[in-house]
Amino acid sequence: MSKKIVLAYSGGLDTSFCIPYLKETYEAEIHAVLVDCLGMNQEQIDAIAARAKKLGATDFVCVPAFEELYERIISNLIKGNVLRDRTYPLSVGAERFVQAEQIALYAKKIGTTMVAHGSTGAGNDQVRFDVALRTLLPDVEVITPIRDKELTRQDTTAFLRERGFEVEEKTTLYSINDGIWGTTIGGKETTTSDEALPFDAFPHLKSPETFTETPEEIAIGFENGLPVSINGKKLSTKELLQQLLDLGRKHGVGRGMHLGDTIIGIKGRIGFEAPVAAIIYLAHRELEKLVLSKWQRQTKDNLADTYGMLLHEGHFYDPVMRDIEAFFVSTQQQVAGQVRLYIGHGNLFPLGTSSENSLMNASFAKYGEESTGWTGEEARAFSKLYGLPSKIALQNKKS
Amino acid sequence: MSKKIVLAYSGGLDTSFCIPYLKETYEAEIHAVLVDCLGMNQEQIDAIAARAKKLGATDFVCVPAFEELYERIISNLIKGNVLRDRTYPLSVGAERFVQAEQIALYAKKIGTTMVAHGSTGAGNDQVRFDVALRTLLPDVEVITPIRDKELTRQDTTAFLRERGFEVEEKTTLYSINDGIWGTTIGGKETTTSDEALPFDAFPHLKSPETFTETPEEIAIGFENGLPVSINGKKLSTKELLQQLLDLGRKHGVGRGMHLGDTIIGIKGRIGFEAPVAAIIYLAHRELEKLVLSKWQRQTKDNLADTYGMLLHEGHFYDPVMRDIEAFFVSTQQQVAGQVRLYIGHGNLFPLGTSSENSLMNASFAKYGEESTGWTGEEARAFSKLYGLPSKIALQNKKS
Amino acid sequence: MSKKIVLAYSGGLDTSFCIPYLKETYEAEIHAVLVDCLGMNQEQIDAIAARAKKLGATDFVCVPAFEELYERIISNLIKGNVLRDRTYPLSVGAERFVQAEQIALYAKKIGTTMVAHGSTGAGNDQVRFDVALRTLLPDVEVITPIRDKELTRQDTTAFLRERGFEVEEKTTLYSINDGIWGTTIGGKETTTSDEALPFDAFPHLKSPETFTETPEEIAIGFENGLPVSINGKKLSTKELLQQLLDLGRKHGVGRGMHLGDTIIGIKGRIGFEAPVAAIIYLAHRELEKLVLSKWQRQTKDNLADTYGMLLHEGHFYDPVMRDIEAFFVSTQQQVAGQVRLYIGHGNLFPLGTSSENSLMNASFAKYGEESTGWTGEEARAFSKLYGLPSKIALQNKKS
Amino acid sequence: MSKKIVLAYSGGLDTSFCIPYLKETYEAEIHAVLVDCLGMNQEQIDAIAARAKKLGATDFVCVPAFEELYERIISNLIKGNVLRDRTYPLSVGAERFVQAEQIALYAKKIGTTMVAHGSTGAGNDQVRFDVALRTLLPDVEVITPIRDKELTRQDTTAFLRERGFEVEEKTTLYSINDGIWGTTIGGKETTTSDEALPFDAFPHLKSPETFTETPEEIAIGFENGLPVSINGKKLSTKELLQQLLDLGRKHGVGRGMHLGDTIIGIKGRIGFEAPVAAIIYLAHRELEKLVLSKWQRQTKDNLADTYGMLLHEGHFYDPVMRDIEAFFVSTQQQVAGQVRLYIGHGNLFPLGTSSENSLMNASFAKYGEESTGWTGEEARAFSKLYGLPSKIALQNKKS
Repeated sequence: MSKKIVLAYSGGLDTSFCIPYLKETYEAEIHAVLVDCLGMNQEQIDAIAARAKKLGATDFVCVPAFEELYERIISNLIKGNVLRDRTYPLSVGAERFVQAEQIALYAKKIGTTMVAHGSTGAGNDQVRFDVALRTLLPDVEVITPIRDKELTRQDTTAFLRERGFEVEEKTTLYSINDGIWGTTIGGKETTTSDEALPFDAFPHLKSPETFTETPEEIAIGFENGLPVSINGKKLSTKELLQQLLDLGRKHGVGRGMHLGDTIIGIKGRIGFEAPVAAIIYLAHRELEKLVLSKWQRQTKDNLADTYGMLLHEGHFYDPVMRDIEAFFVSTQQQVAGQVRLYIGHGNLFPLGTSSENSLMNASFAKYGEESTGWTGEEARAFSKLYGLPSKIALQNKKS
Repeated sequence: MSKKIVLAYSGGLDTSFCIPYLKETYEAEIHAVLVDCLGMNQEQIDAIAARAKKLGATDFVCVPAFEELYERIISNLIKGNVLRDRTYPLSVGAERFVQAEQIALYAKKIGTTMVAHGSTGAGNDQVRFDVALRTLLPDVEVITPIRDKELTRQDTTAFLRERGFEVEEKTTLYSINDGIWGTTIGGKETTTSDEALPFDAFPHLKSPETFTETPEEIAIGFENGLPVSINGKKLSTKELLQQLLDLGRKHGVGRGMHLGDTIIGIKGRIGFEAPVAAIIYLAHRELEKLVLSKWQRQTKDNLADTYGMLLHEGHFYDPVMRDIEAFFVSTQQQVAGQVRLYIGHGNLFPLGTSSENSLMNASFAKYGEESTGWTGEEARAFSKLYGLPSKIALQNKKS
Repeated sequence: MSKKIVLAYSGGLDTSFCIPYLKETYEAEIHAVLVDCLGMNQEQIDAIAARAKKLGATDFVCVPAFEELYERIISNLIKGNVLRDRTYPLSVGAERFVQAEQIALYAKKIGTTMVAHGSTGAGNDQVRFDVALRTLLPDVEVITPIRDKELTRQDTTAFLRERGFEVEEKTTLYSINDGIWGTTIGGKETTTSDEALPFDAFPHLKSPETFTETPEEIAIGFENGLPVSINGKKLSTKELLQQLLDLGRKHGVGRGMHLGDTIIGIKGRIGFEAPVAAIIYLAHRELEKLVLSKWQRQTKDNLADTYGMLLHEGHFYDPVMRDIEAFFVSTQQQVAGQVRLYIGHGNLFPLGTSSENSLMNASFAKYGEESTGWTGEEARAFSKLYGLPSKIALQNKKS
Repeated sequence: MSKKIVLAYSGGLDTSFCIPYLKETYEAEIHAVLVDCLGMNQEQIDAIAARAKKLGATDFVCVPAFEELYERIISNLIKGNVLRDRTYPLSVGAERFVQAEQIALYAKKIGTTMVAHGSTGAGNDQVRFDVALRTLLPDVEVITPIRDKELTRQDTTAFLRERGFEVEEKTTLYSINDGIWGTTIGGKETTTSDEALPFDAFPHLKSPETFTETPEEIAIGFENGLPVSINGKKLSTKELLQQLLDLGRKHGVGRGMHLGDTIIGIKGRIGFEAPVAAIIYLAHRELEKLVLSKWQRQTKDNLADTYGMLLHEGHFYDPVMRDIEAFFVSTQQQVAGQVRLYIGHGNLFPLGTSSENSLMNASFAKYGEESTGWTGEEARAFSKLYGLPSKIALQNKKS
């Protein structure tokens, strides 16, 4: 019986190269698996399938994984308002674990431990894929020709053309990674720190001046910390995210640049469009401010930094991630309500927030107005004792 | 000899009330001290002085304190990119300590321990003033008639009018607190969580649609983590901040709403305009990403959260604040370079960053390109060992 | 109908004073409630009841609360290995919330909102009791004569004697607060920092030289992070804790001094005996080291510091405490196994730990022996890439 | 001219093997460098030198490095009370960086980039050495035959004997790593989690029952957070540490077991004796509790956990380490005074602490006694407002 290699296949140049290369090199059947985190349409899938077959894949499978991605990862990012370096909503990294899981499941199903992916040796994805595959698939053999042979675009193009496969001329200088939770843009200027990634390089958000639609007011409804409705209308998660994506692109919000530390240890830079994350995070944080205590928000923000660091750096399977998720779930029980936002001309702004669980309880006191919950004398006494540690520390210092 | 009370005087209704009230009640000389953190012009100062004298103050002094405010507080906020709740740049709280210090110094100078301020019993400023005054002035007697008698705007207006002093009709529903580091807007809608503070209530930043100036590109130069130039031109701190303020107001950036926890323990809500903080923080963080290690940025962000919490909550004199500042200073030695930003239509966007201390060192490796610092085999080995803890933890779990 | 006051009654001088004082002052029925966190025997309870009646209490009730204390608080301290300032196992503070809850419940039951406790105005317990009672009992009137009148031991003794009540001569210079989770000793030397609390002042642990029993080896079994057996024998929680208390006292372990910050803001010092906490924490931490990942232990230790701070400082009802408890529960699912300890002559020492969930998995590699999970070349490559950030940062610094 | 290899030489089996092996394999001069962190005597050094020469080393140098080790690392551990996993005082890891630095300096001096060490591929030291050497020595070639060839004790012994070199029979089952800051013991039982490392395996601290010396009271004096005197007598750092080591060994304190996560990602276990760290940490922490504010100690403890993690894991050259050290220095300015300890029978206990910078200021209030700094009414008011957040959060929850 022939050897089988399961290939994480995207339809791009690198994974296309892998099909004939692996087939030749390992004399193996190539099972190309496309894990679809986007919710592609059938036409898109068929095109990718056709290419895989043409390149010699024994088999092509498309595994839909949007629900899985949301359930397992995006929903936790929302609960925690998780950002890398307080900037980047982990748009791409989130997907890799879900993709690796489906690849591992498929390999188990067809009874092989040979699994391939097309990552290079410089980025984060190679590590995320490797860690996930090795963790999920006992005795996996991870095959990564692009990395191992240090192949360039020129190398892989030449290999394919030599064998009569067509390779489109590169039409863009940029490598675009599209996803519902965010799109990343890398290439040319992003390999430096000082050159500006031109607005034209962003696939959906062109120059800020181009957003001239009339601003809108939207209301996002939350239950248990997750968005469930727009303007009062309950939506499935996929519809809700898609509507926010359309809205964000229409009004030009969620653009960013991230320069940060890769897992390997070097600095990397990337442009991104993440309108869905931008809108949901703003609304979610506003609601949390109303219904959570100071210590909840502070402790939560701190844990979210850890969560973001570990997820970004490939530690999604570390059990501490499940523990932090348990913390998140506990905090989100009260996070229900409506948040109204202004969106327009690239601007997002919180208008108002209402919740049955509001802690802005007028029965005790109103900030900026007279208090009814305590007297001026009590406030004076509070201030006096509250300041004791500073007073003691400073007087001591002078003595 | 007559008793002397030093009054923290702003020229507003509450502190205006204090002059005749304290004079009558304590049969004391009232020394009105205006601590100017803004850099007012002489005309503004003269008007406030005239009012103080008219109300019966024995003495009026204006103490310029912008340099002090920058040196002692704002510069530390910049070094740390300090925000309250990852939202609010501590626009107002920052000033209170500097004001209290000048009041305390003045009281020592004229030989009294009686000091008054006009705070109410519901807000944060009463606590900040009290803590600072009690810490700085041994045996201080803190006099706070508005708080102690729980006086309303109606009460103080009536008191002044009964004595023949003119009180202007309130022309705005909002209480505006203006400062170079930020302006806060409170009142009416902000006493609730769900009503929108209208764009018209913001004194300098009107509706986002109104910002139609042609976007600009600016370059901010940093040394030791602090901004020193705009577009290559070295400026004094005051000029630099003023130029950024003008620029930010012209292009409509830095608007925000903050709903958070007050020192007293209730929730409070406020609108703010902080264009200077918005511009500097973005530029500063971009530069830090290029020149600091991952652990530096992460540890620093974490400490900055603590710094912001303690400053906001009145603990500026806790010695830990000096320790965190020492940490900041150490991190900022390498933070020098140029950051270019796009500013326009309410949008801010980082274009590029350059520094002699850049850690994006092309000699080892380029993110997204071939690496020259290691082989594919080495990257594979790294990934393999890097994933051991997850592999061990998960396999164990299954057994 | 007569007014009713529920008094948190311990049988000590201060709360004994409260009975006739409150009766006279408020012309109210006094309902003395003893919340027993220790598991007293009937004789002890009867003696306290008799004294309450003699002093004029309308009613006396003893509410057993050991289970509640363990379930709600001690079990969480164990899960988190919670210490104040990495020193003190929160022996006393833990009890106050459970006591206040029972007092509040009782007050609701008899239909009153008047509740009294005997705390002074200098310590932590006043704050804990006040916060808990105000949180749990809407519209509570908290009555605290000792604090409000600033009464001394002399004052309360005189008051009682004037009314013909007997007050025992003080037989110790120390105030002892006994509990299963720890005993605290305050007085005389502890009001300074430099004087030694003599070993004789400790009620159960005398001088280290006096512990001459033959050392023992014990094995503690854990399930879900909580101790369930000693030397293989399953025990009820109460029996288990009692056996460890006896054992710890026999061998002289768990003594400590704590000098720390009170809620009010001054420094306080106290001696303590906490053998049960000492033994369980050591065993529990050893087990956690074997079955939790590095990030789990590190994140957990960090959260435990927050948990300890907030519990000690009276914030037990802040919802973040429930969130941290959810985190703890998640981490403890794997914390099952046996820990063997040496105990003798005041020394505790971990001998060995076994668990089905052990992560010290010999199949991959053995620390200090040859590895089977990777080659030397792979380890070299790992080390090389692992060190990249330091290499980049330092070379940059030199340039 | 012949190639030169600088070998980090300890005189043990592994590095002894390296001399002839590297000489043969690389046809190079071997320069054996002993970096002495202990303060060896001349006799010890001469013996090691003789062995190196006999094995064929071209050159032998002993670089004294105790001062460097204390200055650069141990003093920072003391300032931070740094422990790995709140257990282990980083006894061994501390030395590796100082050793690597001296090796790198020596290599530069003799003009080679070929450097060798004898680490295996399973432990932490290989990573620490590699990271340090690669960071400090541009273009270093790190040679590690034991790791690369995965050689066992049997292999290296055979190699040496074949060439006529004498190898002593192993007289102990344990690998002992001796240092002033701690001694580690590994082997046999420590390769499992459940077997007890016998007391006899500890080189200096035998069974607890064997320590029968009369307990002592000692006073340690601190300046700027570092120990400077014992019982009032100023000592050089080396004398001071040596006296504490003698004292600790005499009374049997500082024994421990550590089971933790290695850099590679597997669990490792080790026994240790660290009496000097045990004594100094206890005294230092006691003093800090008296002179630092709550926020200082808390923030410091938290940073110390990060410092310990990064140092242990080989990131000593990450610039964040210098930043944390700056924080430590700032906190330690007030840390001066005398701490008295009881030491005996394996027990350490703090007796009393005095400092000119004491924050236990009797002029304001005495814990557990009447307060003079505030009234009972003020304390009541403080408690009331202090509890607002809990009250609001809980009442909200019920509604």
